Amino acid sequence: MSQKIIFDTDPGIDDAMALLFAHAHDNVDMVAITTVYGNGVIEDCTRNACYINDTFNMGATVVQGAAGPLTRDPVGPTVVVHGEHGLGTVEVPLDYPINIDPRPAHEYMCDLARENPGEITLVAVGPLTNLALALQHDPEIVNNVKEVVIMGAAFGEGGHRGNVSPVAEANIHDDPHAADQVFCADWPVTIVGLDVTHQTFFTGDYLDELRRSAGEVGEFIWQVSRFYLKFYSEKVGVDGCHVHDPSAVAYVADPSLFGVRKGPVRVVTEGPAIGMTIQKSDERFYHHDEWSCFRSQQVCVEVDNQRLLQMYKDSINSLA
Amino acid sequence: MSQKIIFDTDPGIDDAMALLFAHAHDNVDMVAITTVYGNGVIEDCTRNACYINDTFNMGATVVQGAAGPLTRDPVGPTVVVHGEHGLGTVEVPLDYPINIDPRPAHEYMCDLARENPGEITLVAVGPLTNLALALQHDPEIVNNVKEVVIMGAAFGEGGHRGNVSPVAEANIHDDPHAADQVFCADWPVTIVGLDVTHQTFFTGDYLDELRRSAGEVGEFIWQVSRFYLKFYSEKVGVDGCHVHDPSAVAYVADPSLFGVRKGPVRVVTEGPAIGMTIQKSDERFYHHDEWSCFRSQQVCVEVDNQRLLQMYKDSINSLA
Repeated sequence: MSQKIIFDTDPGIDDAMALLFAHAHDNVDMVAITTVYGNGVIEDCTRNACYINDTFNMGATVVQGAAGPLTRDPVGPTVVVHGEHGLGTVEVPLDYPINIDPRPAHEYMCDLARENPGEITLVAVGPLTNLALALQHDPEIVNNVKEVVIMGAAFGEGGHRGNVSPVAEANIHDDPHAADQVFCADWPVTIVGLDVTHQTFFTGDYLDELRRSAGEVGEFIWQVSRFYLKFYSEKVGVDGCHVHDPSAVAYVADPSLFGVRKGPVRVVTEGPAIGMTIQKSDERFYHHDEWSCFRSQQVCVEVDNQRLLQMYKDSINSLA
Repeated sequence: MSQKIIFDTDPGIDDAMALLFAHAHDNVDMVAITTVYGNGVIEDCTRNACYINDTFNMGATVVQGAAGPLTRDPVGPTVVVHGEHGLGTVEVPLDYPINIDPRPAHEYMCDLARENPGEITLVAVGPLTNLALALQHDPEIVNNVKEVVIMGAAFGEGGHRGNVSPVAEANIHDDPHAADQVFCADWPVTIVGLDVTHQTFFTGDYLDELRRSAGEVGEFIWQVSRFYLKFYSEKVGVDGCHVHDPSAVAYVADPSLFGVRKGPVRVVTEGPAIGMTIQKSDERFYHHDEWSCFRSQQVCVEVDNQRLLQMYKDSINSLA
């Protein structure tokens, strides 16, 4: 059965790849795209979301969200990874028409969840500011949504601890206070972080093949990924890229791709470790413990990369 | 050549095992024993240090140090691990004579280092309060000591992150502010933490054999370890104990037992992750980085457990 989702995103190159995946996969029904600052400034992210939604006839409602974090000083867009306006070398006209719901994203989330109790999954692949604002706006949202799936964080599995600092992943680092509220809230959260996304990889060849097989969609994914692959090539020294945001969609489409560990999760909100995420496994006990008073959440620690790559390819090709 | 050390300690059962090791090993010349609160209150730790120093004719100067942490609320002694007065079921008379240098430990450290420039290694196996106070008292100590070797901390190697909280090791958790000052200071620090000490293990049989082979010293180690092994048996479900504090002495005696990773180290000083230690590897670069302005230190990540156990046994037997 198809899963209704609100896709909260800061497009963003891998966000674009994930949007097309969510649109393409039969198990996913993307009702709305809510935007958030992050990979780009909010105006760029909303424009990019509208452009992708229109261009590929996704039929989702686009809703604009937060322009900056709850409390911390803004970190600023990651231009070096996603380009000046978020989609690498793909240029969306700056005056591209913006057709969006008038509500702020967090209100829209609360309303839609209230109107469809138990049916909506929030999939968030940017900073978690909109979700934290939704929790503040209508605390009942924790009972109204079905579940929450996050791309972000890093828990040290296989040594994957951080990407923007030695211990912090970018989405959490952008708004650690929001992330702590989202992880500690009494709703079921599954976290698809660097622990698993660093086990996934789109090679240059894989993207070339997708370009040949998947028509306009394949061409767009190939074009949008050029800047991203240049970053990976120059800074990481590899030909290809990790499959960050699409992995959150993959979890919604087929959770059996992933192995999880259960336990409450906290976020460091100050000091040099700002943005670090820490899970206390449900199977361990400690004398000092500021975790156990919070709900146990799921952290993905294993992924079947081959099956994920096949699923992504099959889905995208189905749009051709 | 024998290495002059000041042994900063909170005896403590594994501290007692380490004191005897430092006394026994030919490569180590234990000039002084400085005490600190931690496994017990300061009065118990000082009394235990005096008792062990006298009983086994160690000839070290005993010096009393801090009674509590720099800034945080005291955590309190770990009675459940080390017993009511720090040495398990071995009872030192509460009126045992206390023969100590009149200076506080941190002053003594500064003086001795200044009088013997480049010759003294500080080996600290308790909370790092005395070392932080020494840095404040005489900043020149960073140039006067040869090096600093710490038993404490945990960096997630092999999943070893914390023991008293999901992310904090006891010695660092007892005084995270002091630890951050010690790790960030411009002197060479080597950290022997849970990453390696959880790879070491004294079995019950090993301690029984030491009791048979090592006369009074072996008998004392066996007696003092009964309470500790009871804790391990009941709480961890194993027959034996990790080799925490003696591992710091082993590093001084033969650094080749250990493999290290280099990079600056910070400590989280507030929030749920208080007491967590984080190293930025010198081989990694990050956009946000509050590590690189500090000196690169050594974290032990590998240990040859069999060779360490043999060295401990040979040293202790040499006292029989």
